[in-house]
Amino acid sequence: MTQSIPRQELSNAQIVRGVAEAARAAARMVAKASAAQRTAALVAIADAIDRNTPTILAANARDMAAAHGLATAMQDRLRLDKARVAALARAVREIAAAPELLGRIEKTEARPNGLEVQRVRIPLGVVAMIYEARPNVTTDAAALCLKSGNACILRGGSEAIESNRALAAAVREGLAAAKLPVDAVQLVPMTDRDAIAELVKLDDLIDLCIPRGGEGLIRYVAEHARVPVIKHYKGVCHVFVHAAADPLLALRIVDNAKTSRPGVCNALETLLVDRAIAPAFIPSLVAQLAGRVELRGDDTARSLGGPTVRAATEEDWYAEYLDLILAVRVVDGLDGAISHIERYGSNHTESIVTTDQAAAERFLREVDSSTVMVNASTRFADGGELGLGAEIGISTTRLHAYGPMGAEGLTTTKFVVRGTGQVRT
Amino acid sequence: MTQSIPRQELSNAQIVRGVAEAARAAARMVAKASAAQRTAALVAIADAIDRNTPTILAANARDMAAAHGLATAMQDRLRLDKARVAALARAVREIAAAPELLGRIEKTEARPNGLEVQRVRIPLGVVAMIYEARPNVTTDAAALCLKSGNACILRGGSEAIESNRALAAAVREGLAAAKLPVDAVQLVPMTDRDAIAELVKLDDLIDLCIPRGGEGLIRYVAEHARVPVIKHYKGVCHVFVHAAADPLLALRIVDNAKTSRPGVCNALETLLVDRAIAPAFIPSLVAQLAGRVELRGDDTARSLGGPTVRAATEEDWYAEYLDLILAVRVVDGLDGAISHIERYGSNHTESIVTTDQAAAERFLREVDSSTVMVNASTRFADGGELGLGAEIGISTTRLHAYGPMGAEGLTTTKFVVRGTGQVRT
Repeated sequence: MTQSIPRQELSNAQIVRGVAEAARAAARMVAKASAAQRTAALVAIADAIDRNTPTILAANARDMAAAHGLATAMQDRLRLDKARVAALARAVREIAAAPELLGRIEKTEARPNGLEVQRVRIPLGVVAMIYEARPNVTTDAAALCLKSGNACILRGGSEAIESNRALAAAVREGLAAAKLPVDAVQLVPMTDRDAIAELVKLDDLIDLCIPRGGEGLIRYVAEHARVPVIKHYKGVCHVFVHAAADPLLALRIVDNAKTSRPGVCNALETLLVDRAIAPAFIPSLVAQLAGRVELRGDDTARSLGGPTVRAATEEDWYAEYLDLILAVRVVDGLDGAISHIERYGSNHTESIVTTDQAAAERFLREVDSSTVMVNASTRFADGGELGLGAEIGISTTRLHAYGPMGAEGLTTTKFVVRGTGQVRT
Repeated sequence: MTQSIPRQELSNAQIVRGVAEAARAAARMVAKASAAQRTAALVAIADAIDRNTPTILAANARDMAAAHGLATAMQDRLRLDKARVAALARAVREIAAAPELLGRIEKTEARPNGLEVQRVRIPLGVVAMIYEARPNVTTDAAALCLKSGNACILRGGSEAIESNRALAAAVREGLAAAKLPVDAVQLVPMTDRDAIAELVKLDDLIDLCIPRGGEGLIRYVAEHARVPVIKHYKGVCHVFVHAAADPLLALRIVDNAKTSRPGVCNALETLLVDRAIAPAFIPSLVAQLAGRVELRGDDTARSLGGPTVRAATEEDWYAEYLDLILAVRVVDGLDGAISHIERYGSNHTESIVTTDQAAAERFLREVDSSTVMVNASTRFADGGELGLGAEIGISTTRLHAYGPMGAEGLTTTKFVVRGTGQVRT
């Protein structure tokens, strides 16, 4: 095979392997560092971000100058200003202040033969983050990885490369100040996809890969990965307005879930309305969202909602609009809602609005998604809002983490066994 | 692509997909079943194994008749007799009697906005077991999957196909008796490797794959998998006899770890001896294992151990002998032992023998393996011995599970959020 690989690709492979080998060596040092030393590094990183604000903003201005072709939403994610840089530093300080995870004894059991068996929390090792556009991921991911004792390989998108370089340099300044190896946080210099493919193959050096961005990027990573991947492709989140819903509370939740930030994965995409309440609810929904949200309904929703409701097609039930568009379907009670979600859902977040506690409990039990809610906006499906602290990603696959994942998701446990000479008979 | 796939392979793909689709549908029913119903199914399965003992033994006799070419150790794993079949049924009853996992609330937190956030234990969904020779995996895996609310796809080796068919039939009899879908446990009819490749690609239908067997099988699965895989390639387990070891206790542990069952993954493969204790310890080691274990040592070990110690090569430090052979290396104290394990170890199990508590604690903290021990035989690295109940596998990768894994490893948690109309500002 070797001779058929083009020169450029071979070189990518070598660069990426070098980065990963340095990360692996640094990971051992970070894992051995004390909690005080890792906390000091995080504080030093926050200070370095603050101190280097002018450099970071200048780098970001270069990215923005090159970003004219990008969508407005992407340009907004990319843009930094003084307040946003200050927020990045503040987020790192909050991670520093969170409780220590490593060495935590999760379980102790004395076995009948006298062995003491403990489960002790340890880091994963080397975490690779693959992401697009958002420079905040650079510092958030670095801080969460260091908090949990891991090294971190960052591979951001080409559109943010200048900003990411400046932010990674600040992170490495902080590491050096705390006498931790700077290679504990490295930015992959290449922004082409081949470099990603090389990176996610390195299962001897990398313990976990977390892709964040568009579905295309995530599918590309999943296809090429030999390293374990934690991911979600998309968030097709549902609200189900049950027959026994408080209609005003339902309107408030639907409005918030759809319109408070339509471009994020925990925004509402499909509204399910119980047939029993639809004649009363759908007209008030149309009035509530008029002029702000495009509605696409099934036949019943259209007949109840009037001419502003456009016709939904089969694709609408699968759609993650990330926009001010809402699919509306009338379903036959709780069973109808559960079957719709089972068929079209993405295992992200679903919420039932009801005053009927038995219905709520059945929905919470039977809906298979990573976050299930009653009488709350889907927008709360977020590590910070659910009490995990800062979020490194959201998983809709059920291995290791399911749902929002914070620093604890970047750790595992080992078995520690203390004996007095026990042998096995 | 389609037209270039040979007819036979296409058919394998279709069969395997059919099995997985049926498993997915059955998994939903099993997840919804009550604890009482799943327990009743497990008891009915144990009864069916007992009742069908003659059929199972006749099937096993057909496998044994075809097994003449296999190694003795493999023939021993394959062979069933009345006592072994009774033990299979007993293992299922023990799993039935273990505490219920599903619905367990792992955490409850009230958020400042009044949301109540819980983490609730749920099944993974569909688990694929890929294994060789051992018919006991058929009933153990089926029982552990049902206990944890999962459906299970079994793909055993060709050498055990008759035994596996008979055992799977007994399992399905038990499921039917408890009115659970029989497709919750299915045996893949094909035993060729292509069928494995097809199976482990189905990431839309299968949540986890656990390969158990030789390193070749496990690497094949890891290479072809799109489904998450939990695995260990091998167990190169170490005992380190520290300068402050009690020598008699060390001999007892080494003897047990090496000789009590040399063919299993938690058996000792490399003994590390502290240079400070080597002159006293190595002659007694040679005397202890004389005529029972072949020793392969480095130069120091050979000069201290005399002519029966053969010369070890670099490959011996990587070797998983699974036989009565022991590699012996003299190392410079705790640091030397830790570096050797870091370089040659397999992240399975390592044990230090010492009376020096500070040395013990440093070893337990710094050695990166999934199970670390002090003053105990490596043979205790086993789900049952460490208090997990029956074991479904051992993981030496750090995602989801690290070390021995029992029924709880076949579950995850979801976020359950109860609100009173909260929206996000």
